[in-house]
Amino acid sequence: MHALTLRSGLEYCDQYPTPVPADGEAVVRVIQAGICTTDLQLVQGYMDFQGVPGHEFVGIVDEAPHHPDLVGKRVVGEINAACRICPVCQAGRPTHCPHRTTLGIDRRDGAFADFLALPAENLYPLPDEITNDQAVFAEPLAAACQILEQVSVDATDRVLVIGDGKLGLLCAQVLHRTRCRLTALGRHPEKLQILAARGIHTSQEPASLSRGFDIVVEATGTPDGFALAREYVRPRGIIVLKSTYHGHTVMDVTSLVVHEITVVGSRCGPFPPAIALLRENAIDVPSLIHKRFPLEQIINAFAYAATKGALKVIVEMTSSRR
Amino acid sequence: MHALTLRSGLEYCDQYPTPVPADGEAVVRVIQAGICTTDLQLVQGYMDFQGVPGHEFVGIVDEAPHHPDLVGKRVVGEINAACRICPVCQAGRPTHCPHRTTLGIDRRDGAFADFLALPAENLYPLPDEITNDQAVFAEPLAAACQILEQVSVDATDRVLVIGDGKLGLLCAQVLHRTRCRLTALGRHPEKLQILAARGIHTSQEPASLSRGFDIVVEATGTPDGFALAREYVRPRGIIVLKSTYHGHTVMDVTSLVVHEITVVGSRCGPFPPAIALLRENAIDVPSLIHKRFPLEQIINAFAYAATKGALKVIVEMTSSRR
Repeated sequence: MHALTLRSGLEYCDQYPTPVPADGEAVVRVIQAGICTTDLQLVQGYMDFQGVPGHEFVGIVDEAPHHPDLVGKRVVGEINAACRICPVCQAGRPTHCPHRTTLGIDRRDGAFADFLALPAENLYPLPDEITNDQAVFAEPLAAACQILEQVSVDATDRVLVIGDGKLGLLCAQVLHRTRCRLTALGRHPEKLQILAARGIHTSQEPASLSRGFDIVVEATGTPDGFALAREYVRPRGIIVLKSTYHGHTVMDVTSLVVHEITVVGSRCGPFPPAIALLRENAIDVPSLIHKRFPLEQIINAFAYAATKGALKVIVEMTSSRR
Repeated sequence: MHALTLRSGLEYCDQYPTPVPADGEAVVRVIQAGICTTDLQLVQGYMDFQGVPGHEFVGIVDEAPHHPDLVGKRVVGEINAACRICPVCQAGRPTHCPHRTTLGIDRRDGAFADFLALPAENLYPLPDEITNDQAVFAEPLAAACQILEQVSVDATDRVLVIGDGKLGLLCAQVLHRTRCRLTALGRHPEKLQILAARGIHTSQEPASLSRGFDIVVEATGTPDGFALAREYVRPRGIIVLKSTYHGHTVMDVTSLVVHEITVVGSRCGPFPPAIALLRENAIDVPSLIHKRFPLEQIINAFAYAATKGALKVIVEMTSSRR
């Protein structure tokens, strides 16, 4: 099959072996996949990943030996393939299974290919109302929804989202649904406009904001975001960390103690609420798509996605068969 | 009066002005005061404090213009002097009042003196059962109790306390009361023995512990403690930070996101539960006292307190009058 591989660098390959489903797995023919900032960071060495990257996808189930009902269904998928039997899985935290592989991120080939394999139980069939363009956002939108699984947010809370990249724009829209007193802080007027059009208060000027936010969501994707979050959160407030990046941050830990700040690391989230939001058309995702490339031009697609200010880049697969 | 002052260095002074109570304040004749690691850090430049250090004390109310009932009472005191009228105070967080001064730490002369002044409402009269030696631990014990105000701990939780200094020993004893599955990790057999004598499981060997603690309390007082806490906490677990120190920590923030760790900064705590624990004799504090010095030898007392392995050093005031 056709696939993008990451070894010492990215390479487009038209003779990559098609995945063979392991026990309980299904094979999905990928329709299209989104390039995530994490994919760009994998290229920089994050996770030391080798293989086919890509984890935001929509596709059609091609083969599902133990789940014949799934075949032909259009699906999105939870990217963590857990063992389901270890104590962590049994405790209800399969996304933290120590034996897990992660689609296109950790020891499991991903979505920038004609086919991918995932455990059948990771797949969520989609209602017809959800377009393919919406569906590729199910995974990052689930990550945005994870904030509300971890932190209670209500209408009285002053909330700041820092970062107007793809994840920041999704987090802001999800938080806006709580009717909290929300401000989205970013650097790109055209991106903030997507939020302003939905009635979200936006700002490009941190200095113009009064501090003391109850909750600050750090979604800049850079090590600098933490210090800004620390500055704008109130004593006993909560910083939600959504950024992952290659490298370390120098942190004033004492200030977290003195001001009794709570810092909540937040990663992958639940698909059902994300799919429900997409079905209700409650989240503007079409505006987040900046460009589309066919799979054979994926090297160019990555180059474009890495340019300053680029939002979502969609990669469309060929309809090749094995 | 006699007092220790910190300017460019520590100096013992026998002609320091006796505090005059501001509106609502009381003046306390100090009986004895404890040297805290924070005091040692103030000498290193923490908080840029200038004045009389000392914030762990027991004393007798000498003067309380608007609270005559307090005069003659033996008291301990909450060290944060809040304005009580700003929005933060009104929201029930007076220990985070932006206008607050802090006894012996931030713009308010402290307890290493014959007298100190605090708002009368900060003072807690002591039951007779509590000795003066116990009473000087009310403030750090309240800080240990603060953990249970912020984090729910129950008998099923595996909890690790890192650090066998004064605060670590108090935190471990407070957590032991929850009947959680507690381990105290330290470097000093003689200190860990204080905990072992109370039935607490202790260890000097991190490598011998299985990881995956639900809650890890970082009380080492050093920047290195965080990385150890991160290593031993389970995914979606909680790290409680109790250490304050002068300087910054390099942190793998991405790892907090990937493992969805919650980090809770924890500082000063409630006096009533601390006083109740002391009254019940539920916490072994006498064993934590290593040495006593009279106020006029306080420079030596600080030198002793800074030696490796020293636990609590008590400074006894002269019974001088103004």
